[in-house]
Amino acid sequence: MSAAAWQETAAAAQAELKSKIPKDWLLPEAILSSKPRNVIPIFRSCGLLTGRELEITEVEDCVALLEQLHSRKWSALEVTVAFCKRAAIAQQLINPLMNIDFEGARKRAMDLDDHLNKQGKVVGPLHGLPISFKDLTDVKGMKITLGFVALADHVSETDAVAVQSLREAGAIVYCKTTMPQTGMALETISNLWGRTLNPFNTDLSSGGSSGGEGALNGCHGAPIGIATDIGGSIRAPASFNGLYGIRPTSRRFSYKGNAMGFTGQAAILSSIGPIGRSLRDIELILKVWNAFEPWNYDPVVAPIKWQPAPVPTKATIGVMYWDEVVMPHPPMQRAVQMVVDKLKAAGHEIIDFKPYRHREAWDLTFKHYYPTAGSNVKEFIERTGEPVIPAVAKYFDRAKMLDVHELTQLFKDQRQYQTEYLAHWIATKTQTSTGKPIDALLTPSMASASFPHDYLPWWGYLSQWNLLDYPCVILPVTSVKPEDTKDSLYTPVNPLDQETYDMYDPEKFADIPVCVQLVGRNLQEEQLVAVAMAVDEAIKQ
Amino acid sequence: MSAAAWQETAAAAQAELKSKIPKDWLLPEAILSSKPRNVIPIFRSCGLLTGRELEITEVEDCVALLEQLHSRKWSALEVTVAFCKRAAIAQQLINPLMNIDFEGARKRAMDLDDHLNKQGKVVGPLHGLPISFKDLTDVKGMKITLGFVALADHVSETDAVAVQSLREAGAIVYCKTTMPQTGMALETISNLWGRTLNPFNTDLSSGGSSGGEGALNGCHGAPIGIATDIGGSIRAPASFNGLYGIRPTSRRFSYKGNAMGFTGQAAILSSIGPIGRSLRDIELILKVWNAFEPWNYDPVVAPIKWQPAPVPTKATIGVMYWDEVVMPHPPMQRAVQMVVDKLKAAGHEIIDFKPYRHREAWDLTFKHYYPTAGSNVKEFIERTGEPVIPAVAKYFDRAKMLDVHELTQLFKDQRQYQTEYLAHWIATKTQTSTGKPIDALLTPSMASASFPHDYLPWWGYLSQWNLLDYPCVILPVTSVKPEDTKDSLYTPVNPLDQETYDMYDPEKFADIPVCVQLVGRNLQEEQLVAVAMAVDEAIKQ
Repeated sequence: MSAAAWQETAAAAQAELKSKIPKDWLLPEAILSSKPRNVIPIFRSCGLLTGRELEITEVEDCVALLEQLHSRKWSALEVTVAFCKRAAIAQQLINPLMNIDFEGARKRAMDLDDHLNKQGKVVGPLHGLPISFKDLTDVKGMKITLGFVALADHVSETDAVAVQSLREAGAIVYCKTTMPQTGMALETISNLWGRTLNPFNTDLSSGGSSGGEGALNGCHGAPIGIATDIGGSIRAPASFNGLYGIRPTSRRFSYKGNAMGFTGQAAILSSIGPIGRSLRDIELILKVWNAFEPWNYDPVVAPIKWQPAPVPTKATIGVMYWDEVVMPHPPMQRAVQMVVDKLKAAGHEIIDFKPYRHREAWDLTFKHYYPTAGSNVKEFIERTGEPVIPAVAKYFDRAKMLDVHELTQLFKDQRQYQTEYLAHWIATKTQTSTGKPIDALLTPSMASASFPHDYLPWWGYLSQWNLLDYPCVILPVTSVKPEDTKDSLYTPVNPLDQETYDMYDPEKFADIPVCVQLVGRNLQEEQLVAVAMAVDEAIKQ
Repeated sequence: MSAAAWQETAAAAQAELKSKIPKDWLLPEAILSSKPRNVIPIFRSCGLLTGRELEITEVEDCVALLEQLHSRKWSALEVTVAFCKRAAIAQQLINPLMNIDFEGARKRAMDLDDHLNKQGKVVGPLHGLPISFKDLTDVKGMKITLGFVALADHVSETDAVAVQSLREAGAIVYCKTTMPQTGMALETISNLWGRTLNPFNTDLSSGGSSGGEGALNGCHGAPIGIATDIGGSIRAPASFNGLYGIRPTSRRFSYKGNAMGFTGQAAILSSIGPIGRSLRDIELILKVWNAFEPWNYDPVVAPIKWQPAPVPTKATIGVMYWDEVVMPHPPMQRAVQMVVDKLKAAGHEIIDFKPYRHREAWDLTFKHYYPTAGSNVKEFIERTGEPVIPAVAKYFDRAKMLDVHELTQLFKDQRQYQTEYLAHWIATKTQTSTGKPIDALLTPSMASASFPHDYLPWWGYLSQWNLLDYPCVILPVTSVKPEDTKDSLYTPVNPLDQETYDMYDPEKFADIPVCVQLVGRNLQEEQLVAVAMAVDEAIKQ
């Protein structure tokens, strides 16, 4: 394909996508040409959304929304149209979508309303709930491109297990969201769909690779979204957009029907998980997935029924203020300290948790991501001659093709590190008053609340838990404030730390939400969610 | 090391081992020089074991033995001495041992007796139970050699998690048992420890790689033994020696502290499991392991508490009479048919289960076993210049070093096959009266009840479930009878089938026990054990 050809393909795909937005949902040129850095206020000020639509789309969370739906106070149709319209506005402001099926969604909503009116009961716990999905997730009849121009016209023939189970529970699919070319970036840009901006501060990244989900949900363009995470791709977008999110253990829910650039990669498996507005919403999705018994469809999934754990009144929580590689920016430090103070005030026990060789963990992780130096994804790129996006290009430069001895050694090294880290975690029992190991670990979600476009950040705070396969939750805490000034006395400990330090400026990061991360034990999602609820309650005090 | 040197090392190791057998436990030369093919009667006829010792060592099972121990009818010391003596006799007849610590075991038994007498209570559910372990399992202070002359003096510094948990529950370690050089054979021979014979028919294999466990337990030289299985190594020895055995899902119990020739192998993980005389004994060991919460020591183990399943009164069981690659020998066919008939008579439902691409599954499995063409184990062999054992040599000849693309493709192929097989299994729900998939699958344990020494048999009946990582139980049914004559009308379907057909002769296989295999679902050991108990009850009717 000639250089011009891929650009034409991308332009055509974007034009087709735009054509699916109804004319009367288009923002006036005056608004588009004078967008402020923070576009969130535009949803109310633009006048396209009615008072009822604002009420619907800004509802507390899905659980509250479902109460309105199931009691027939709101119809599935009006809820769906409200979210379609808000997503359409979001698309014009920050570009989070790569598939639109508002018509299909309307039809499905009408069917569901009809069912409820006639039968007097819902089809399932998610009856009438619109849900957005990420590009790489198979949704029957919708495009799946992984941000490659070569896949611009690639359409899924089936639903992923995670989609099928949500649909059967009553969910409505109305759009799919952007991801970066290849999926291996913590920001979201592709030659095919362009860049997805952070709605709170369009100068900065919406996160990645599920940046479309993060941005769309961040501005209430979806009540909840489904994302995936092999190195932080659920958590960076959740954090950058002030949302709740969970990266479950890879073997807990079904990834079947979700594409991966690196399908032969056996050491670090990707996870699927929701990004949303409350922990009870997160739990609701996990319970629906679990009730579907995905182990009957996907050999990877452990057959463990969901067993709710009690929310602890006195949790024991380790806190890791930094990973000894890159010092978190001032607002990230402030958020962790705020949470620690509030947890202590609420009667929880906090102990210091020392990081264990996180820098070496990253080196190991990086090699596992690119055993063939990315050759299989390069193939997709070379097919059209489109350029590699900057963040991924930097990784491609560093990645080295392994031989089979190196790869088998890498599996050994990972197991050894996992074993040592587990012992390190269990050893916290010598520090706690209970004599038991910590219930969860509190850490910054990343070193920064977001980052400028085309920047390659430190993944360690996120990818650490993919290497270990520990489940993690993101919890919103605060946002960047002008007083979050730099510590002028801090001396960075390495070039990466220096670069991260230099990158920060509170004015540049204005309005970006700030979250923390809570890490649990392998396959113990119930316990992690319960502890997260206790932490969330404390944060909200 | 010169050719003579490795032979000297082996001779010295064997002499040292022999020196640990008390002089008055040595069999007279007259017995040794005129051993019948079936050595089982010698344990009673040789006169070395007292009536009490015969009663102890031929006790029904561990549960019955523990009742005697915990009610103080039998002391731990006399039980331990009885099994030490019987193991010593077994060693002289069939060579199953490679570590002896009768003195340490006596001391531990006396301590346990002392504890029970003084405190009036047991240290744990296995108080006073002698247990044998396989060469490759770390037992502190004992040799661990994997059958390599190069490791003749290699001693473990710690206990494996599985050993530690059994010891803490009151078990007594008194010996370790043989395995073939490398562990990758279904028979048991090494240049270091020699050949382990089948006690029922010394012309034939004791099975492998846990052939020492199979042979020792087969002649009541241990009340129960712990083995490992990456391709049939628990199940072949259990089957060849008429014992119960389970190969659990790899992620259910801890393999930590068990060596593997192929530590970087990430696709097919080895499992640890007991070989013993009853299903309730098997369950007892699994429960003790589970109660230790191995997931706090080993990152591989899924944190699933043991939840006993009810023994079904009407189970739905699939039966796979053959795998469409190699036709089982007449006694193996007879055993499966016997079980089918008895299950039907007991009111269980039987449906036909068609194999799904088992030949291709083996090709995939074989590549996964030898991604580096065995280079890492060859290194151990080359260190001393000892020859490769015949069965392994044949595999080495066939194994091909993969490149990283081939290996990553292999991971994809395995996942794909696992997914298809799961769908195949779930599809049985269209055949059952319950509308649910089968509860378990009944198959021959292997194509043959044993095989001649240095023969390379078809692994498919066993390795199939390692590739899929489904748990399997071996159940004793019958033994080879003179009337199990060859079907002269059978036309073998391929050279391997022909070779297997040609190998059989009922006289040659006389007295060898015949077992069946019952296969369950990934990580659902409780359900498999419960169904196995129903099958076992039917068999005993």
